[in-house]
Amino acid sequence: MKLLEERILKDGHILGDNILKVDSFLTHQVDFSLMREIGKVFAEKFASAGITKVVTIEASGIAPAIFTAESLNVPMIFAKKAKNITMNEGILTAEVYSFTKQVTSTVSIAGKFLSPEDKVLIIDDFLANGQAAKGLIQIIEQAGATVEAIGIVIEKSFQDGRDLLEKAGYPVLSLARLDRFENGQVIFKEADL
Amino acid sequence: MKLLEERILKDGHILGDNILKVDSFLTHQVDFSLMREIGKVFAEKFASAGITKVVTIEASGIAPAIFTAESLNVPMIFAKKAKNITMNEGILTAEVYSFTKQVTSTVSIAGKFLSPEDKVLIIDDFLANGQAAKGLIQIIEQAGATVEAIGIVIEKSFQDGRDLLEKAGYPVLSLARLDRFENGQVIFKEADL
Repeated sequence: MKLLEERILKDGHILGDNILKVDSFLTHQVDFSLMREIGKVFAEKFASAGITKVVTIEASGIAPAIFTAESLNVPMIFAKKAKNITMNEGILTAEVYSFTKQVTSTVSIAGKFLSPEDKVLIIDDFLANGQAAKGLIQIIEQAGATVEAIGIVIEKSFQDGRDLLEKAGYPVLSLARLDRFENGQVIFKEADL
Repeated sequence: MKLLEERILKDGHILGDNILKVDSFLTHQVDFSLMREIGKVFAEKFASAGITKVVTIEASGIAPAIFTAESLNVPMIFAKKAKNITMNEGILTAEVYSFTKQVTSTVSIAGKFLSPEDKVLIIDDFLANGQAAKGLIQIIEQAGATVEAIGIVIEKSFQDGRDLLEKAGYPVLSLARLDRFENGQVIFKEADL
């Protein structure tokens, strides 16, 4: 997605060996107009896939996911990273290790929001090691629902998340694919969308 | 907001003495069309207030906040509840106690996203004891920015958050105000919008 790649080049910051900071438009401050375009691109790709739910994980996935859900005219569900006292029955869970935050968390979705008839599009802001997506897949499949594909805003192609998911049989579609960082500059791989 | 009150009556669940569960359209599964209407109502109210930023707190505030930001044509910033390794400089913080989750967390926003010229509209999904809003106000004022008002989707009017904020001089505008629960039914106070 050319608009996204241009924005990454303009406003992204490389930290250390493998972190791209995009907190000015995606992960902290959010540019609604870019999110709307992202939602449209995902929705066009999956227009005829019969998607019934968009699933993401709090918090940075919510903005791209809600616009994708709007463009597909389906509900969005965000998985929770911590239980709270109002979640009390029929909770589906998976363990997810975050390399960024260096913690394992129990990710959960209330089972009542997913059924065997559901065809789910997973949307997330980043794909690195694929742990978050793997956790979401586990939860969705516990409910008997089908994961149609995983839509990613920014893929770190130098990490193994995409391989892991594709080898397990799940299509991955990424709007921007980071091949490597060279002299403080992002070099992209060809994106899927 | 009549549409919201009707939705609460239809899909909200009362838990115990003081919890309204709205996880089918706001706090877990999210109805984009309701969020879009909510965004429009807030934006109409503040159309001439010169708002430059919408600020919320992860995670349930993000959906109503991003649509409000879109309708006002300004960026949205969501405060973080946990630090991560990509947040490393100029972080403004406040301590917030969550009665729902029964934990104190350090809420933070990168200072670079707020300046003394900013006029901020705070948006949040719930107002109960006002602790989250108070923390956001502290952060915004640390940056020298001005809090114009606090827009709330669902206010628990039987708790003291609104009083706390209004006595401190901040206008509160709530789309639905829960007066009390009676025989398993929500009784509303007159809403602000």
